[in-house]
Amino acid sequence: MGEAVAAPITQIGVDDIEHLVLGAQLVSSGGATIGTVPSAWLRRTLAGAGPVRLVPVSDLSPETLCVPVGNVGSPTVLEEKLPAGEEFVHAVRGIEDRLGTPAGAVAALDVASINALTPVIAAAQLGLPLVDADGMGRMFPLIELTVWAAAGLPASPITLVNTHGDVITIDCADNQRIESLARPAIIALGGWCAAALYPMNAATLARHGIHGSFSQALRLGRTLAEAQERGSPRGADLARELGARLLFTGAVVEVSRPTAAGFARGVVVIADRTDPDRMLRLEVQNECLLALVDGRVAAAVPDVICPIEQGSCLPVGVEQLYYGQVLDVLCFAADPAWHTPEGLALAGPAAFGYPLPNEAPPGDQR
Amino acid sequence: MGEAVAAPITQIGVDDIEHLVLGAQLVSSGGATIGTVPSAWLRRTLAGAGPVRLVPVSDLSPETLCVPVGNVGSPTVLEEKLPAGEEFVHAVRGIEDRLGTPAGAVAALDVASINALTPVIAAAQLGLPLVDADGMGRMFPLIELTVWAAAGLPASPITLVNTHGDVITIDCADNQRIESLARPAIIALGGWCAAALYPMNAATLARHGIHGSFSQALRLGRTLAEAQERGSPRGADLARELGARLLFTGAVVEVSRPTAAGFARGVVVIADRTDPDRMLRLEVQNECLLALVDGRVAAAVPDVICPIEQGSCLPVGVEQLYYGQVLDVLCFAADPAWHTPEGLALAGPAAFGYPLPNEAPPGDQR
Repeated sequence: MGEAVAAPITQIGVDDIEHLVLGAQLVSSGGATIGTVPSAWLRRTLAGAGPVRLVPVSDLSPETLCVPVGNVGSPTVLEEKLPAGEEFVHAVRGIEDRLGTPAGAVAALDVASINALTPVIAAAQLGLPLVDADGMGRMFPLIELTVWAAAGLPASPITLVNTHGDVITIDCADNQRIESLARPAIIALGGWCAAALYPMNAATLARHGIHGSFSQALRLGRTLAEAQERGSPRGADLARELGARLLFTGAVVEVSRPTAAGFARGVVVIADRTDPDRMLRLEVQNECLLALVDGRVAAAVPDVICPIEQGSCLPVGVEQLYYGQVLDVLCFAADPAWHTPEGLALAGPAAFGYPLPNEAPPGDQR
Repeated sequence: MGEAVAAPITQIGVDDIEHLVLGAQLVSSGGATIGTVPSAWLRRTLAGAGPVRLVPVSDLSPETLCVPVGNVGSPTVLEEKLPAGEEFVHAVRGIEDRLGTPAGAVAALDVASINALTPVIAAAQLGLPLVDADGMGRMFPLIELTVWAAAGLPASPITLVNTHGDVITIDCADNQRIESLARPAIIALGGWCAAALYPMNAATLARHGIHGSFSQALRLGRTLAEAQERGSPRGADLARELGARLLFTGAVVEVSRPTAAGFARGVVVIADRTDPDRMLRLEVQNECLLALVDGRVAAAVPDVICPIEQGSCLPVGVEQLYYGQVLDVLCFAADPAWHTPEGLALAGPAAFGYPLPNEAPPGDQR
């Protein structure tokens, strides 16, 4: 995404939380809004443990066990069913027990929404470095939607930990079947869990991860914060600063958000404020997956479609959009690993029920 | 139950299957009928591996890891969703991995219905001795209803294995909560699983198990088979030979078997054939839990209430009872461990929703 060459970011401390939250919300593609609980959890953890060391995977010896972690289940439940605090420690320890190998670093399932924060919590509590890499490069609702799975790596073993410290470990050779085993377990465990999954050594992570994810979220967050301070940039300027493409600017005229089969689906329509016949339609399945301008595909999953509130420059989760809100809608190109045949088969438009005639959306500048 | 002194039974081979099945059905308290699949699975396993060595726990060194196993979920599903064959091997290996200790013996969750057969399969496949002990001494629908749980022993870690070889491992310090975690996992795994649970060393099993369970099932089965060969014994004679108490003899006049919340509930009424105003009413929750003769409690859980078909001398699962069938209903006293305050609190009548004025049913001969 961002093209600017910048000094490497080598740690994440209390002062970085604001930027991390902003950037993580941006790359969530309109996904779950980061609530007060994960931010407070991270702040309290870093205030006690000090900053976490952020390392490129190349800094680790090849055999180092890297354990990606993330929150799974409902972020909304997390806001009401508070963490006991050590959930991610138990999750990583469970993987260590299962594999008989100590973890040498923590990584991220996805650096987006609250899962940009949870790996930092885990690394701080475990006293381990945090690898600057993740498996999604955006946000997806299913644990098998990773570039790791696209590369044939197993999600298993997975540990799921709830607030009681109960641990469910899943060993399953089939990444597709894991979802059907994990989802009921997550619900039985209380609606959200700390998960550790896709354990792999640093050599494998170097070949298959999406790299620089935390650095990118921090830089995007800082750029947004600077834009907020300067006040009300034009959408095209904001997009250029963020390294994104401006899809549309307009006001929300329709929001439909039914919940179907446990997942949030929806449609959002925004209209051009000077020419109300020009419209952008967002198709939503937890995240914004498809953007159509006047009926033509302007952007599609796996690329990242981001509604940003004009004026405040705040990235907005779909569940917080409301009638009349004025938005700039931006698009970031997904990591190239998602634009391979394997990546598109797993998480392209057709996988979500949008069989586009051409998987490369028109107007895509990549 | 049986009082006769007999030569110890030291192995279980192909020729013992018939007696084991009969005895296991008897002590199931009218529970699930043993289908063709588990019997065939056991027969094929023993035909290949030879007889399993049956040992009293006192034959094992105190630190030997004993792993109780059993089928969990629906025996009906097992009849349609056939085992791959090695499910119990994976379940025990999962416990060994989790604990870092090799298993020295297999034990039984319960020696009743199909779970009298599954530990024999496991022991044969693993080449381990089978401990002549179990945790229920009868059949119960929930995994926490064991004399082990009554003694405060943890059911955890539990491994659940399906026909794909997927393994779900549950670590949970609270035996009550484990049921709420395991049940959705069992359903997600396909409806039935091989389970290994309550792992403990031989010293602990010696103190807290119900001992002689397999020997008893084999002896009861042999006694039933002999009665079948002699033909149509009177109920009182059959009860005496089996070491049980005859509760009632009569013909089924009502069978009600609704399924509620995933469990089979029901009421069975049988009437005296010479005085049809005399009636026995069986209250059923998967198994026969309460027997009332003319409205007075004649027997109650945790004691074992067994409908036996007259003439054939076959113990009958509740789901196979039909109008007009003539039954002798027998009662075996449960193991004394169930008649402690802890045992009754866990699995006495009140725990199943029958708060009897006196937990010791009238007419109980113990």
